Amino acid sequence: MPGLRDRAPVYLDCDTGIDDALTLAYLVAVGADVVGVGSVSGNVSAELGARNTLDVLALAGRDDLPVAVGAHDPLLGRFHGGALGVHGTNGIGDVVLPRSPADPTAESAAAMLSRLAREHAGRLHVLAVGPLTNLALALDADPDLASLVGGVTIMGGAALVPGNVTAVAEANIFNDVVAAARVLDAPWPVTVVGLDVTMEARFEERHLEALLAGPPVARALGAMLRTYFRFYSPVLGRPACALHDPLAAAVALGALTPTLAPVVPIEVDTTDGPGRGQTIVDLRSRYIGYPPLPGTRHRVVLDVPAGFGDTLAEALLGL
Amino acid sequence: MPGLRDRAPVYLDCDTGIDDALTLAYLVAVGADVVGVGSVSGNVSAELGARNTLDVLALAGRDDLPVAVGAHDPLLGRFHGGALGVHGTNGIGDVVLPRSPADPTAESAAAMLSRLAREHAGRLHVLAVGPLTNLALALDADPDLASLVGGVTIMGGAALVPGNVTAVAEANIFNDVVAAARVLDAPWPVTVVGLDVTMEARFEERHLEALLAGPPVARALGAMLRTYFRFYSPVLGRPACALHDPLAAAVALGALTPTLAPVVPIEVDTTDGPGRGQTIVDLRSRYIGYPPLPGTRHRVVLDVPAGFGDTLAEALLGL
Repeated sequence: MPGLRDRAPVYLDCDTGIDDALTLAYLVAVGADVVGVGSVSGNVSAELGARNTLDVLALAGRDDLPVAVGAHDPLLGRFHGGALGVHGTNGIGDVVLPRSPADPTAESAAAMLSRLAREHAGRLHVLAVGPLTNLALALDADPDLASLVGGVTIMGGAALVPGNVTAVAEANIFNDVVAAARVLDAPWPVTVVGLDVTMEARFEERHLEALLAGPPVARALGAMLRTYFRFYSPVLGRPACALHDPLAAAVALGALTPTLAPVVPIEVDTTDGPGRGQTIVDLRSRYIGYPPLPGTRHRVVLDVPAGFGDTLAEALLGL
Repeated sequence: MPGLRDRAPVYLDCDTGIDDALTLAYLVAVGADVVGVGSVSGNVSAELGARNTLDVLALAGRDDLPVAVGAHDPLLGRFHGGALGVHGTNGIGDVVLPRSPADPTAESAAAMLSRLAREHAGRLHVLAVGPLTNLALALDADPDLASLVGGVTIMGGAALVPGNVTAVAEANIFNDVVAAARVLDAPWPVTVVGLDVTMEARFEERHLEALLAGPPVARALGAMLRTYFRFYSPVLGRPACALHDPLAAAVALGALTPTLAPVVPIEVDTTDGPGRGQTIVDLRSRYIGYPPLPGTRHRVVLDVPAGFGDTLAEALLGL
């Protein structure tokens, strides 16, 4: 896991989305070395996600960062239209940002990932906070990809907590189960940051108020968060929201060190049954402290230090 | 849920098994009104389970209780041969008990259950601590059964903890997934006592030592428990064992009142995928205290008071 001081180059794959917008701003705020961003359909379409990504990056002062449009449809089936009830009809809480002068690259997200993995061989860190379609397409097209990438961190799945699309499935995995299975089967080390920790990482009302009273970038993010709060407050039983994607970013950057993240077998349920989209994480060795198992390479983050909402708000207020 | 003072008549369905033996002794010790016992293949074959049941009941002074042999095979497929590595080759830790003078009834377990439900209409409590084959057969044969039974408590499943057969499946459910699905689909209220609580209810070494130094019945149970400890100690990382079936009995009798047992949707994964045998419990409303949902009728026990090991040991030492 590259620490922030390592400044490992980062490829971000996202479906922007309000918590993706927070993540983009956070990466800029902490000075992460983002070398490319790809979009994928999830919270919104890949096309809209790329536009939102460009506009949020421009808002944060980084209209120089290359943004590639990724897969519109999952590997099997069609894009379902997004989570507009969560993220607003434009994906960023119906906030209208100034349009970035930049346009998406001609390159696809999967091609960008593959190229960057070669340019930063052994060092590139892949941070994927949407469905894993682009990563799976890149793995299929480039048999060397897994060995060229330094590490992968995904926001996705749920191990010992309920899902958010079904009782057991989390949205990023559920929205492309075949891609998720390919990404977890590939011979690269994946750190899985799922609902076990992201549902507990939260902005409370005081964070929202601080952002709304902050400088222009923070104010714009706060305006988006009003929509996110509208969805999450009834779920959480209080004015608050979960910080899914930013938490995964903090783990990927080494800015946040998990307090429990065992290396254990993980499988994605790709059946058409009620378990479809579940990340089946084998945690049966929990009572003996998760001793290493031969052949396992994926870390599942089960606990992180408290207080990430404060950390994130502080970073965003610094923009 | 009938309390012990209600002395609701109990039909016990079991696959005896060391923790089933503890359960039989516990039911006798606390004076539960057991009106019939059926066996089913699980830890051992239904035939051997019935013999063990008779012998344990005779040991505990109740050779008068009717014991019926139940289903040898699950509804689909064949009995796999049992969990002899957990329970010993004879199912009761290779302890040889005096043979009870009693024999199984001519009636099948499913027929016994159906008859008892009529004889104790509206009052019979069904306590099932093995695979649910007999209950499913009785439901199929007797369309009125669900409405005649007062309540059902099963030991089975896992909601927010790992399984014990696969990463997500618990043995009683996994061993007859079709039967489990039928039992949870039937219009009767089921209380599910699964690994969430039974893995935390334990005998420690001091309980084992107390039983081994106790009166003859406790000594025999302690001798069985040596085998059970041999299996569980490496799983738990200390000399101890889980008290699956006795805990379900205590909940069924009302001797133990769960501290958290929401009424929520439950579904059994009957696919052939990696989730097969999982009890998919929809706990997404956890953040708002599990408000009632129309159409749900099953309770999932997620927390119980600590100290059941002490309670159980004390009861068994009183025999």
